[in-house]
Amino acid sequence: MNQEPQNTQYLINGKPSPSLSVVDRGLAYGDGVFRTFIVKSGVPHHWELQYLKLLHDCRALGITCPKNDDLISDIQTLFTGGTDAVAKIIVTRGESSRGYAVPDGIQANRIVIKSAMATYPLSNQTQGVKLHLCELKLGLQAKLAGVKHLNRLENVLARMEWNDTNVADGLLLDSNDNVIECTMSNIFARYDNDLITPSLEECGVAGIARARIIESAKRFNLNIKIERFKLNKLMQAEEIIICNSLFGAWQVVGFNGKQWAKQGLDSQLREMLIN
Amino acid sequence: MNQEPQNTQYLINGKPSPSLSVVDRGLAYGDGVFRTFIVKSGVPHHWELQYLKLLHDCRALGITCPKNDDLISDIQTLFTGGTDAVAKIIVTRGESSRGYAVPDGIQANRIVIKSAMATYPLSNQTQGVKLHLCELKLGLQAKLAGVKHLNRLENVLARMEWNDTNVADGLLLDSNDNVIECTMSNIFARYDNDLITPSLEECGVAGIARARIIESAKRFNLNIKIERFKLNKLMQAEEIIICNSLFGAWQVVGFNGKQWAKQGLDSQLREMLIN
Repeated sequence: MNQEPQNTQYLINGKPSPSLSVVDRGLAYGDGVFRTFIVKSGVPHHWELQYLKLLHDCRALGITCPKNDDLISDIQTLFTGGTDAVAKIIVTRGESSRGYAVPDGIQANRIVIKSAMATYPLSNQTQGVKLHLCELKLGLQAKLAGVKHLNRLENVLARMEWNDTNVADGLLLDSNDNVIECTMSNIFARYDNDLITPSLEECGVAGIARARIIESAKRFNLNIKIERFKLNKLMQAEEIIICNSLFGAWQVVGFNGKQWAKQGLDSQLREMLIN
Repeated sequence: MNQEPQNTQYLINGKPSPSLSVVDRGLAYGDGVFRTFIVKSGVPHHWELQYLKLLHDCRALGITCPKNDDLISDIQTLFTGGTDAVAKIIVTRGESSRGYAVPDGIQANRIVIKSAMATYPLSNQTQGVKLHLCELKLGLQAKLAGVKHLNRLENVLARMEWNDTNVADGLLLDSNDNVIECTMSNIFARYDNDLITPSLEECGVAGIARARIIESAKRFNLNIKIERFKLNKLMQAEEIIICNSLFGAWQVVGFNGKQWAKQGLDSQLREMLIN
């Protein structure tokens, strides 16, 4: 350990370390969960919501969630210097020998990774974004639906479907052809004053940005509806918005052969989400 | 590195190391594949089949498969001393910064882990085994079906459903109620001279032991059928066998409220698979 604390990019269980045991179940089985969020001048963005979601996701998998104080301490240790950066927290079930069975007394591992702020083209905000329609369709698994777990091969394979740097994300349908989400974002569709987002009871990741838009829609005179709907309904939307905790919200202006005029809801939502 | 080579339990890209980068995509997304097999006196069991399967699975995910010679060299380095042991090979897509997109020129990581031979009760061979019927049902994802990838949360959650040490494995149905496999093994059902195993085109892991039984069934005067079937058909089997590369084959003698008399096919198959 000859790194100065201010240069440390990784903490494992509170200690500077760039590497994890090869018998960690996070590697062996994707047996864990994660969160990604902005830390501004050392302050994690919407921490209470992030921690509540981490608790919820750990509980869904039967993993012991790290203590709030330990994670706050990790963030204070890593995110010094006052610049904005991105935190990724990974919680794995812990280490075990071969086999799926979970040993008694297993200790969860908590990993906090600091990385530079994500950079996106300014035009994503000013002109909107294009989406790819993914060929891969999400499988259904109610026991994992909504959870931001480490089994993300569907997202990886879907993201491999396009190389066009002008495409910001890819829209994912489920195996019943319901609209679900994008590879790294949730989606909303506006029809007059109704703002509809897909039900995530059978697949998908229920992100914090999505939750905050749902909670605050009334402020924007919008009625939230959470429901199942198909691609043809999405195509009829007056405005399509994608969102996550890093970029906030962008309007979709090109998708599946159709163009939409740039409007203003995305900038209102972005202001609320990341400023 | 103060370990003597003969005590080394792990190699990463050919070098002794017990730990992997926390930004490896194997941890971040389960973005990789694995194999587990017996090494007898330094010789990997059915290596050609294991390597062919590794090649196939890497190709399914677009991961560069390690060279055969490098893996053989790893095994020769780790498995010295003439005792029998178990090898686990993990191949991940490699390391990348945040985000699902795969960077150009990414280098796959190969991990070889040596562990002690699995120990199972002798009664599993002499008297047969009991199975649990899992409540969790496997989701369908044709793009991942058959592949032994690192997204194994379904197996982990299914394995958490029982604690009874007399239960050897849990039977998994898919979301359409087709019989698929067990959490750590494949399954065969015998009806007279027909030996049926589930089609794995939409989910499940197509193991090497399963492949070898399919190839060699004629030797046992059995006609192989690979098809979709439901639980009620499984319950009518004259003999049910589960198999994997570590234990070979066991007969199921208790499952879902029914008992079967111990017969002899499992020991014939086991002889072929692991002796």
